[in-house]
Amino acid sequence: MLVVMKANATEAEIENVVAVLRENRNKPERLPGHTRVAIGVMGNKEYVRQDDILRLPGVAEVIEVTKKYKRVSREFHPQDTLVKVGQAVFGAGQPVMIAGPCSVESEEQVLSTAHMLKSEGVHILRGGIFKPRTSPYFFQGIGYAGLKHLQKARAETGLPICVEIMATEDIDLYKDEVDMIQVGARNMQNFDLLKKLARIQTPVLLKRGHAAYLEEFLMAAEYLLDGGNHNVVLCERGIRTFETSSRNTLDLNSVALMRTLTHLPVIVDPSHAAGRHDMVPPLARAAIATGVHGLIVETHPNPSKALSDANQQLDFDQFRDLMRQIRHLAAALPDLYSPEAIAHA
Amino acid sequence: MLVVMKANATEAEIENVVAVLRENRNKPERLPGHTRVAIGVMGNKEYVRQDDILRLPGVAEVIEVTKKYKRVSREFHPQDTLVKVGQAVFGAGQPVMIAGPCSVESEEQVLSTAHMLKSEGVHILRGGIFKPRTSPYFFQGIGYAGLKHLQKARAETGLPICVEIMATEDIDLYKDEVDMIQVGARNMQNFDLLKKLARIQTPVLLKRGHAAYLEEFLMAAEYLLDGGNHNVVLCERGIRTFETSSRNTLDLNSVALMRTLTHLPVIVDPSHAAGRHDMVPPLARAAIATGVHGLIVETHPNPSKALSDANQQLDFDQFRDLMRQIRHLAAALPDLYSPEAIAHA
Amino acid sequence: MLVVMKANATEAEIENVVAVLRENRNKPERLPGHTRVAIGVMGNKEYVRQDDILRLPGVAEVIEVTKKYKRVSREFHPQDTLVKVGQAVFGAGQPVMIAGPCSVESEEQVLSTAHMLKSEGVHILRGGIFKPRTSPYFFQGIGYAGLKHLQKARAETGLPICVEIMATEDIDLYKDEVDMIQVGARNMQNFDLLKKLARIQTPVLLKRGHAAYLEEFLMAAEYLLDGGNHNVVLCERGIRTFETSSRNTLDLNSVALMRTLTHLPVIVDPSHAAGRHDMVPPLARAAIATGVHGLIVETHPNPSKALSDANQQLDFDQFRDLMRQIRHLAAALPDLYSPEAIAHA
Amino acid sequence: MLVVMKANATEAEIENVVAVLRENRNKPERLPGHTRVAIGVMGNKEYVRQDDILRLPGVAEVIEVTKKYKRVSREFHPQDTLVKVGQAVFGAGQPVMIAGPCSVESEEQVLSTAHMLKSEGVHILRGGIFKPRTSPYFFQGIGYAGLKHLQKARAETGLPICVEIMATEDIDLYKDEVDMIQVGARNMQNFDLLKKLARIQTPVLLKRGHAAYLEEFLMAAEYLLDGGNHNVVLCERGIRTFETSSRNTLDLNSVALMRTLTHLPVIVDPSHAAGRHDMVPPLARAAIATGVHGLIVETHPNPSKALSDANQQLDFDQFRDLMRQIRHLAAALPDLYSPEAIAHA
Repeated sequence: MLVVMKANATEAEIENVVAVLRENRNKPERLPGHTRVAIGVMGNKEYVRQDDILRLPGVAEVIEVTKKYKRVSREFHPQDTLVKVGQAVFGAGQPVMIAGPCSVESEEQVLSTAHMLKSEGVHILRGGIFKPRTSPYFFQGIGYAGLKHLQKARAETGLPICVEIMATEDIDLYKDEVDMIQVGARNMQNFDLLKKLARIQTPVLLKRGHAAYLEEFLMAAEYLLDGGNHNVVLCERGIRTFETSSRNTLDLNSVALMRTLTHLPVIVDPSHAAGRHDMVPPLARAAIATGVHGLIVETHPNPSKALSDANQQLDFDQFRDLMRQIRHLAAALPDLYSPEAIAHA
Repeated sequence: MLVVMKANATEAEIENVVAVLRENRNKPERLPGHTRVAIGVMGNKEYVRQDDILRLPGVAEVIEVTKKYKRVSREFHPQDTLVKVGQAVFGAGQPVMIAGPCSVESEEQVLSTAHMLKSEGVHILRGGIFKPRTSPYFFQGIGYAGLKHLQKARAETGLPICVEIMATEDIDLYKDEVDMIQVGARNMQNFDLLKKLARIQTPVLLKRGHAAYLEEFLMAAEYLLDGGNHNVVLCERGIRTFETSSRNTLDLNSVALMRTLTHLPVIVDPSHAAGRHDMVPPLARAAIATGVHGLIVETHPNPSKALSDANQQLDFDQFRDLMRQIRHLAAALPDLYSPEAIAHA
Repeated sequence: MLVVMKANATEAEIENVVAVLRENRNKPERLPGHTRVAIGVMGNKEYVRQDDILRLPGVAEVIEVTKKYKRVSREFHPQDTLVKVGQAVFGAGQPVMIAGPCSVESEEQVLSTAHMLKSEGVHILRGGIFKPRTSPYFFQGIGYAGLKHLQKARAETGLPICVEIMATEDIDLYKDEVDMIQVGARNMQNFDLLKKLARIQTPVLLKRGHAAYLEEFLMAAEYLLDGGNHNVVLCERGIRTFETSSRNTLDLNSVALMRTLTHLPVIVDPSHAAGRHDMVPPLARAAIATGVHGLIVETHPNPSKALSDANQQLDFDQFRDLMRQIRHLAAALPDLYSPEAIAHA
Repeated sequence: MLVVMKANATEAEIENVVAVLRENRNKPERLPGHTRVAIGVMGNKEYVRQDDILRLPGVAEVIEVTKKYKRVSREFHPQDTLVKVGQAVFGAGQPVMIAGPCSVESEEQVLSTAHMLKSEGVHILRGGIFKPRTSPYFFQGIGYAGLKHLQKARAETGLPICVEIMATEDIDLYKDEVDMIQVGARNMQNFDLLKKLARIQTPVLLKRGHAAYLEEFLMAAEYLLDGGNHNVVLCERGIRTFETSSRNTLDLNSVALMRTLTHLPVIVDPSHAAGRHDMVPPLARAAIATGVHGLIVETHPNPSKALSDANQQLDFDQFRDLMRQIRHLAAALPDLYSPEAIAHA
């Protein structure tokens, strides 16, 4: 931590800051500058609170040097973390594909989708049963009945299932019945939910809030790791910006940065980032070229009849074509997609 | 709803859109234009889903005319809604003041604060007992013990109490023990929580998410009204923008707009909007001059020792000075602050 | 400047950074921390470039302590700067009002507006003659003829005139014919224009770019002061955010901050911040309550016939009512609006 | 255009809107709805101004159906436009590579860079001679001397040169001496500059402003086409968002959208989008995978000694490795990169 004093701070004010820091068992060091004094706080094992110091007279600014996240940081855990969901392993050298409808609507819909996905080499089946919707008048999901359909699809195809959780009281059910629990963007800072998911071992797919700083996203994951659940996959799904011509803006800068900042696997959701089906393939290709550990894509047997997100789901032909492109692209990027590549990333 | 066809849409494509709309019991009307055809959908009682239509061949764009919110809209409920919390009434012509510490820390802290507030004419006491914190390593609140302190302060001063809710399982407790339940910015779209709060009658202080569209904010309130709880006060607390020199940007444009869009009371939280104590008074004054129904302000007997948000809480002298300014300002704005003014707003 | 090394930086890497800093005549100081070493650079009279250091092996981050702006900073020039335009003085204790039509359209329009403004106590007449328009198909202004109309209005009323500059080749003309030159938001970082305006003494009204960091805004003013023109008034006019329900978001946080960061006068443009006439009065009141040095407001004898910005201009009745509110409000804020108040701000 | 009336608009108000529209030679058509009336304006050849109508009593909202841009629109010009710069052709099926140093610093620097680029198959040499810098205290470029160095490099290698323009008075010089003129992000809405560049035929590389709506970006290009210069290449270079962990956020959503909205070539600048050298390759690959017509990349023989943007320039080894990746990737995307692919895009 660096405490920057005002240009006109008095000697007494500087001494006071030093004294307060010492009181809290830190080792402050004076750094006289050209126009002002700064005070370095070295070796602060315990977290010194920026806000305490900011209130002291004569203080202009407090700059944090240490990152707030620890357990998710690559600096303290250099190797990539592998997260296993069924047979699939995030972080093991090949992009893991999660796919399925936005909402589970019927048994037939889920089964037909699952079989198509299986034949295309997809690794995990997704489907929403309770849906977070902006309006109370929109379709809210078919509920627990949907879970039965997903489980039947798993039994028939062997695909593990990934389901979004909406209420903390569902954790007990999901931890046994679901292979991967999705925390949606709107719940990224539902700390009550995070603390409870930290106590189980089911893998969590944590989506970035639509306006979460990268640091907040990593701190949300820190809640899970700190609480005991290390099976965390991070998912960038587009952020909210001033631009309105597309629903969100896919933030590949953050994806590239996360690969250096954290050891956790990072995947991309091009469906929500795009908001419309014709933009899903270019964004999916872009994500693969950036070097992600997987994708999560929405597909539906008849998108224009879908009960939610009709415009952003791919039909089966579009989905098959996307899988062809992704396989082709991953094969052309041996530096990124091979067991060896990942090991040395 | 207006369906805009592509410039080169074929007659068959146009006919198909018309047919699909009729199938869903709407009354489509063709509007031939200079370079393209548009199709107006009039009198659509049932919500026609934009996404369904967007997928149809030849469609360029779908424009919604009807707002998604109904019950919160002033258009369908012209008079201001009054929300009562203890003796205070939001919307009755005078700014309602909510104040107190960010976190409840001790009985002594809460009692001394409550007595000061009471003597300054504040209407409602606030205090956090479970805190939503970015980091799991930050102070998380003292929990249910804090509720006892707040209740003791209520018994001594008569001030009703406002507490943020973090977990849905606390609703049963809060609905009897607390006078106003705050839904924090991070939970604005925690739909599970909203649906459950809609079933009780305790007044809800709903804070806008830091990157929620105004429409999303009003739709979150719609969840409460639609579910049966009409005692809703809206709170703008700063939005996240590109600007980093202050923690948030107070959005008074939205505050001014909300006064025309909704009949619900609208208040402002200058403490979180500012993020630092010296900016609280100018933003509080600005909010009052805009014409809000109240303010929620953080104050602490000894801010630099506060366990959370130390830098943005006012000490008692600062708070008293702010109250003086607000009383003065409200008195100078008789068009805004008088029972008559509000009645004719 | 603080150079933060990676946790695993080698001794050789640290030594290299120290050596490079010394080479550039700085005094680096090693600050050993708990998990990493930082290197403080004290007394750097010459600007050490962050980018140079960031490239060196083992460096994690470089943190600037010194602000980039100097001449505009209040820290090095504590007293408020007064800027005189005709009889009006920005910074002298009363809000300076600039008003007039968005575009000059005719002599009659300008004269009738000027006489109304004069009788309402407005200090400066504004009017655009070349207009920056998003589309080449929109009205582009009536050009130099408009200048004649403004000058006639000045002759009749004594009001000084403020005109936006669009082309550097107009500086020679404007410096003699115009009393205050406006640099529009889109030209805030037109450095060629800024450098040329720095060489004259005509007061400059510098508008903040719609997505300029506060620091960039102050640095744009630094170009003017550094080049020799100290007659600079800063104007916040709304920033672009994710919110689309109003055209811009008035950033009063930055206004409040600027009062402490800089000695230059700061005014607000509620017309562009609002984008619609009915929101101008609440935002104008909010700006006054924050404590600005003035306002710039658009008004037109017949707004619905205006050739630009029809929806945001006030008609004369609306404008007179706004002036009444502002006078009333300023009188109720003696801590902010009186010669003494400003002197001690 | 669709005029939406308020739910409680009177018959007289509706009639008045219809009358005003007819006055302006439009064909209004009443569209009675469930809760309100809307008025469609069909075949409006002349642009009806939204603002005029918004002021009329009873009007709730005005929705534009027609896009403001015409000449840049793919709807009215379906084929891809080809832009030739020397031997390179943007839009002809292979990504066009522009590269070179951020700033021209010396003859030796430019010549060594140009020869390296030539041997790597780069098509165009770039280099800044006047630099737009946030601070007046930063390096401002070496000026016209730099042009001589670039021209010498062109003579030796045959590479055409691309230079950013900062002042309108340089157009006369540049139009003869430079092969492609760059308009930087800060000048995207310098309309005086755009109007003057529209009168020459030198190809223009138009960069998107860091907070420009896609529509504003296309409208800036419309200024060029409308004025007579059709040789325009659009460049996305990252937008400003709330996220601060990287300097900008590359907006590939807009890139994908532009491919359908406009016939003009679209390229990406991964150097400014990234802001740091190690993030340039992943973003460059992502852009190629999205399907751009080219890239512009900064490279320098000794980046850590560069006089500007030291941290984002690639050294020659990094640049050669990037070229290898791009060639490999483009070859693996035959649907995107082949003369046939582009013809049918």
